[in-house]
Amino acid sequence: MGDKEDFMTRVNDLYRFEAIQGHLGWDQETIMPAKGAKARGEILAWLAAQRHSRLIDDELGSLISRLESESLDDFFAANVREMRRKYDEAVKLPTDFVSLFTKARSEALIAWQKARSESDFSQFAPHLKNMVNLTRQKVEYLGCEHTPYDVLLDEYEVGMKVEDYDPLFAGLKSRLVPLLAKIMDSNVEIPRLPEEMTFPVDAQEMFCNKVSNSMGFDFEAGRMDRSTHPFCAGLWPDDTRFTTRFDEKDPFSCLYAVMHESGHGLYEQGLPKEHSYSPVGMAVSLGVHESQSRFWENQIGRTSAFWKIAMPWFKEQFPDCPDWSNEILDLVANEVKPDFIRVEADEVTYNLHIMIRYEIEKMIFNEDLAVEDIPSTWNKMMKDWFGIDPPNDSLGCLQDIHWSMGAFGYFPTYTLGNLYAAQLLQTMSEELGDIEGIISSGDWSSMLTWLRQKVHEKGSVMTPSELIESATGQAPSPEAFLNYVEAKYSKLYNL
Amino acid sequence: MGDKEDFMTRVNDLYRFEAIQGHLGWDQETIMPAKGAKARGEILAWLAAQRHSRLIDDELGSLISRLESESLDDFFAANVREMRRKYDEAVKLPTDFVSLFTKARSEALIAWQKARSESDFSQFAPHLKNMVNLTRQKVEYLGCEHTPYDVLLDEYEVGMKVEDYDPLFAGLKSRLVPLLAKIMDSNVEIPRLPEEMTFPVDAQEMFCNKVSNSMGFDFEAGRMDRSTHPFCAGLWPDDTRFTTRFDEKDPFSCLYAVMHESGHGLYEQGLPKEHSYSPVGMAVSLGVHESQSRFWENQIGRTSAFWKIAMPWFKEQFPDCPDWSNEILDLVANEVKPDFIRVEADEVTYNLHIMIRYEIEKMIFNEDLAVEDIPSTWNKMMKDWFGIDPPNDSLGCLQDIHWSMGAFGYFPTYTLGNLYAAQLLQTMSEELGDIEGIISSGDWSSMLTWLRQKVHEKGSVMTPSELIESATGQAPSPEAFLNYVEAKYSKLYNL
Repeated sequence: MGDKEDFMTRVNDLYRFEAIQGHLGWDQETIMPAKGAKARGEILAWLAAQRHSRLIDDELGSLISRLESESLDDFFAANVREMRRKYDEAVKLPTDFVSLFTKARSEALIAWQKARSESDFSQFAPHLKNMVNLTRQKVEYLGCEHTPYDVLLDEYEVGMKVEDYDPLFAGLKSRLVPLLAKIMDSNVEIPRLPEEMTFPVDAQEMFCNKVSNSMGFDFEAGRMDRSTHPFCAGLWPDDTRFTTRFDEKDPFSCLYAVMHESGHGLYEQGLPKEHSYSPVGMAVSLGVHESQSRFWENQIGRTSAFWKIAMPWFKEQFPDCPDWSNEILDLVANEVKPDFIRVEADEVTYNLHIMIRYEIEKMIFNEDLAVEDIPSTWNKMMKDWFGIDPPNDSLGCLQDIHWSMGAFGYFPTYTLGNLYAAQLLQTMSEELGDIEGIISSGDWSSMLTWLRQKVHEKGSVMTPSELIESATGQAPSPEAFLNYVEAKYSKLYNL
Repeated sequence: MGDKEDFMTRVNDLYRFEAIQGHLGWDQETIMPAKGAKARGEILAWLAAQRHSRLIDDELGSLISRLESESLDDFFAANVREMRRKYDEAVKLPTDFVSLFTKARSEALIAWQKARSESDFSQFAPHLKNMVNLTRQKVEYLGCEHTPYDVLLDEYEVGMKVEDYDPLFAGLKSRLVPLLAKIMDSNVEIPRLPEEMTFPVDAQEMFCNKVSNSMGFDFEAGRMDRSTHPFCAGLWPDDTRFTTRFDEKDPFSCLYAVMHESGHGLYEQGLPKEHSYSPVGMAVSLGVHESQSRFWENQIGRTSAFWKIAMPWFKEQFPDCPDWSNEILDLVANEVKPDFIRVEADEVTYNLHIMIRYEIEKMIFNEDLAVEDIPSTWNKMMKDWFGIDPPNDSLGCLQDIHWSMGAFGYFPTYTLGNLYAAQLLQTMSEELGDIEGIISSGDWSSMLTWLRQKVHEKGSVMTPSELIESATGQAPSPEAFLNYVEAKYSKLYNL
């Protein structure tokens, strides 16, 4: 077997293990019987160990080194580049440390769940301290060139550092905070659904299926299921599964979850299949993934053009719903309201939530903010930026799962997703013309084709920022997003 | 690492791969999107190869040899014994042959599906010939001490040979054929459900859940789903999944499928968990597995005592169903009718179906019956034994999937299941007393506890026939079964 073949066999094996982990993880979140949890945890840990031992194999390291000096096509070269990154990181982390980290994470997760449900930060604090310390240790193992937080940011969006995020967030904040203030001062009233109305789950499912289908999600190569928190898993070639949840009093919650997750699903379904089970065949980054979900959820789904086509679909399932105009529905779907919970935030406040996380994480790792001081820091920022006081830590710094998993540096990718989506929309408008017309025609295939060609089919052949630049002609920047939200909300709120 | 630890790690790894194969196979049959089939086939083949390379590892062979001369507890010794059997078989088969066999099987399966749907044996014949020839080759590799068919029979029920089955089947035939004739001559009329009645799927599901729950199936450690052909998969510790199918015109079909598969499921849920991922922690054989499903399906479910307790549950779901007595329901559930399809056969004719397969397989491997002559041989036996002429090969020798999979020697285990079940019932009656009383009380836990202690908890520590002998005090024999069917059907049909 030649080096190239040997390398690809090893890489494919690694990614097959990863796909199995993904599948069993999906099953765990959706349909696994409750008592199966213990055995599932064990098999997932076993799979992680199987995968890890293959990743840190010396021979894989030698193959990567030898192939780096060969002339390779772009896709093969990207595989070598990505495996170099993964290999270097994996061999830097001692096996004992990895298992210590995994164990601490399981314990922190359980402590966080309890602390959140009882709104008691003190229960979570020692575990959070532990995760922070272990993460500092990890940064040391990985080696820190600039600031410690840079090492963590790079894990989730390659190439992104504090020096990239700081000006980007400052730019966002300087225009989002005044926009929010103006919206709060406006007198636009948001209509409410009649209190007594309920929206049966089956009908919601039919409606959401119709929307997802219209987006181009292929249900012969995927599924929609239910889980506590909606997510999408691109498990296998031609088998992509996303989930949603249903609220009988609020059909919009499910609709936008489905549009969001279908957006992720379309990306997975559009990845280059000839590169399955290798890094180049995977989505390039969390930020780019999020751009796909936010594009469909917000830039398509939260428009009056969308409601022009979707209202008859909606009426078919819910004939008793009020006869709202598309414009009113658009307003209902875009209500701006400073509130405590990130995942339910509108487009204007969403990124402010992310920035609070970012600032606090930066303080933790670059300025040694004590874990005890996190709640007060959090609450002060909420007051300063949103004008509201979290009544307890469950609605404050305990709301998200990420810290319990040691996923520091993850949040900013959500904002990148919003920015990338706006950049993509801008370029798409320039190239396809009247996007509103396309949306209200109900035939969205030209938009999907555009995303396929510019994003999905590229897999990971470029870095995330190269991909955005190649698709939009511009480096990642907040301009397009700010112009988009300012225009959209000025119109909606008569500013 | 000591030999024992090294051995168990290797064994556990093998069985973890098997559990993953089982899980992905279950998913494939139940919920996988259609287009996922290709990738699923590939990953299953990859898993099989991963598993195989571990099984034929020389070092595993050496460990087995060294452990065979050590003094071990019963459970460890059984693991060594079973791994010896698996290892010896695996190393005898050249890897090329295994992959040739796998490939031929995939092709035969597709050809069989088409041939059956078009009822055209000639399309399947060349593939069947190929499977027969490859199976002959396999027998040669494995080594044949007595007759070639013995080698195949032993694969599915260790220790069972033609010289065991011949007298057993002869005994069965000599009493079942006259019993069938007498039933056919009786004038008992079987009531029919009103033509216009339908039984909604949701209500059937509720009713079947209630029955399965009452049997003791733990739905917190298992699931019920749907598939074309009902089956049960004991995937993981505390995660056992069975399937059923629904016919809106016939609620009994689903009920008995659920009782059958729940019987399999109870066995899986009762296996010794401390031996998970090793042979001794697995069900001992197909025959014993089938005894558990047939016990609940037939000896519990097809009795008037069952209907005494289940009729109110049934009426709750189907208030418009006729007011049949328990005795009439018992008769409906036990209609004897010579028919073409094995899987739908009653308890009297079922084993005759199996014997036709057995006789023909024996002719193929021990007497070189030509593949071309199978349909006519089949049809002649159906005429002789059942008095009916299959109108086409789909209702004849093409009906089952097994031959396309190269599973020759498998069918007799179904009959063993029926015989074992009757032996278990007999001993259970002696030890627990009035079984009818227990059934009609609705509290079936004493029967489950008995099966747990005598069968489930034993795993594979004994061979199948040792297990039956230890549970019933008697070697496997058809007596109990024949006495059971003769008594049951004489009463039902006033013979």
